[in-house]
Amino acid sequence: MKITLENALSMIKASEEKAKTIAVPSVVTVVDQGGHFIAVHRMDNAPIGCIQISTGKAYTAAVLKLPTHVFANLCQPGQELYGINTINGGRFIVFGGGFPIVDGDEVIGAIGCSGGTVEQDMQIAEAGLKSFQKGAV
Amino acid sequence: MKITLENALSMIKASEEKAKTIAVPSVVTVVDQGGHFIAVHRMDNAPIGCIQISTGKAYTAAVLKLPTHVFANLCQPGQELYGINTINGGRFIVFGGGFPIVDGDEVIGAIGCSGGTVEQDMQIAEAGLKSFQKGAV
Amino acid sequence: MKITLENALSMIKASEEKAKTIAVPSVVTVVDQGGHFIAVHRMDNAPIGCIQISTGKAYTAAVLKLPTHVFANLCQPGQELYGINTINGGRFIVFGGGFPIVDGDEVIGAIGCSGGTVEQDMQIAEAGLKSFQKGAV
Amino acid sequence: MKITLENALSMIKASEEKAKTIAVPSVVTVVDQGGHFIAVHRMDNAPIGCIQISTGKAYTAAVLKLPTHVFANLCQPGQELYGINTINGGRFIVFGGGFPIVDGDEVIGAIGCSGGTVEQDMQIAEAGLKSFQKGAV
Repeated sequence: MKITLENALSMIKASEEKAKTIAVPSVVTVVDQGGHFIAVHRMDNAPIGCIQISTGKAYTAAVLKLPTHVFANLCQPGQELYGINTINGGRFIVFGGGFPIVDGDEVIGAIGCSGGTVEQDMQIAEAGLKSFQKGAV
Repeated sequence: MKITLENALSMIKASEEKAKTIAVPSVVTVVDQGGHFIAVHRMDNAPIGCIQISTGKAYTAAVLKLPTHVFANLCQPGQELYGINTINGGRFIVFGGGFPIVDGDEVIGAIGCSGGTVEQDMQIAEAGLKSFQKGAV
Repeated sequence: MKITLENALSMIKASEEKAKTIAVPSVVTVVDQGGHFIAVHRMDNAPIGCIQISTGKAYTAAVLKLPTHVFANLCQPGQELYGINTINGGRFIVFGGGFPIVDGDEVIGAIGCSGGTVEQDMQIAEAGLKSFQKGAV
Repeated sequence: MKITLENALSMIKASEEKAKTIAVPSVVTVVDQGGHFIAVHRMDNAPIGCIQISTGKAYTAAVLKLPTHVFANLCQPGQELYGINTINGGRFIVFGGGFPIVDGDEVIGAIGCSGGTVEQDMQIAEAGLKSFQKGAV
């Protein structure tokens, strides 16, 4: 299964609604399984710097097939993947807000959100993710 | 005046409709006056490589305040801006499909399209641009 | 349909056989539809600089969904896509030797070869490509 | 002695067998003494992001002439090589899974693996490395 633009926009809409509810203007990105943009939306007043963070989270979750928050501990000094955030041109983001989008046991893309705290970004991304899974049923 | 996400999505919608009419799956990007994404949509089946081209056209038109096709002649061997496409990390795109979005005499952003021939990309971008100007009246 | 590593290695083997027949040590790359490596082989004595050219050709053909030789004319001074080879971090290669791998009407990856003249590179890439299409029947 | 493509493929085969045994789809890279690809294989289902990690490990081990895991301590805060992972364009990888390939007292190339935990990656790389040393006897 491939994520269509329509799928991506539905996910982004659900994330934006969550973002409005908690008053966190955000950038929301959906990428395909290769980490390439399907859609990016920057909500009004979301910081420009969040574009790179949102797109980076989506990229990371897609190509490493893991939510970005799992790297938050693994990349700390003394931990197994210390240094992973500085390789690959600095494209891997190691804090929460990026989640792979899964179809059965296959990663078919990812969603990444940035605009608030890591916890808020995760909630906003999860809102988008859940809407897709619900729609997919 | 600032381009809102809602404005950007209306423009993208108009461009996508034109793209469907002429059967050219495209990537459509709207950026702000600083060349930063407001929204990017990749239509189903648009080539992945068109993401860079679409976003690059929008960036170029915004930060140089000119439609990208005006550079097509200026950057030729022997012409005044020969070499402009190789500076700035290769971010300036020198063929048509990117247009500044203007409010009075101020450039407030840009739209960039990629997916077909240069002429098709220009038509698709212009469809988005016109919808904004009409809406702005 | 996805290209497996086994598919990619069969294609590379066919390209390598052609390369040996015409005595052109080459680098042969097969990428997926997103332009990401499935396999890269550098034959003994192939120039190191051909790695970037081979991988770039495969990337270009995958993400722009066209054989790289079609850009050779389009990117010349005065032509429509003049400047395309300097954008996207210089990743687009605009001479022959890269071909999309097609399943029906879908591009599922690409093959790129470098080591000899453009004509030789195209022959070597085509040998790989044909072996896949034959195998796919 | 130079590593031939045939040598590299034998090593990769041994690594892939180990990877299958422990069910860790991996990317396996063999480079020459200059850190340039001889061969890269991405096993089916290995994450795309592991391409950069695998190739980076092989590059690092070849050009620094050390297994990558030795940097894991040396690059920690307060340690001698703190910062080494952020220089050179972020190309040095400082966790395990890359090993130099040695002929006598000369480094003639390196192998790098990525797909699982650091320990799994090291096992998979070592399987390739050992097969070469055995073959070389």
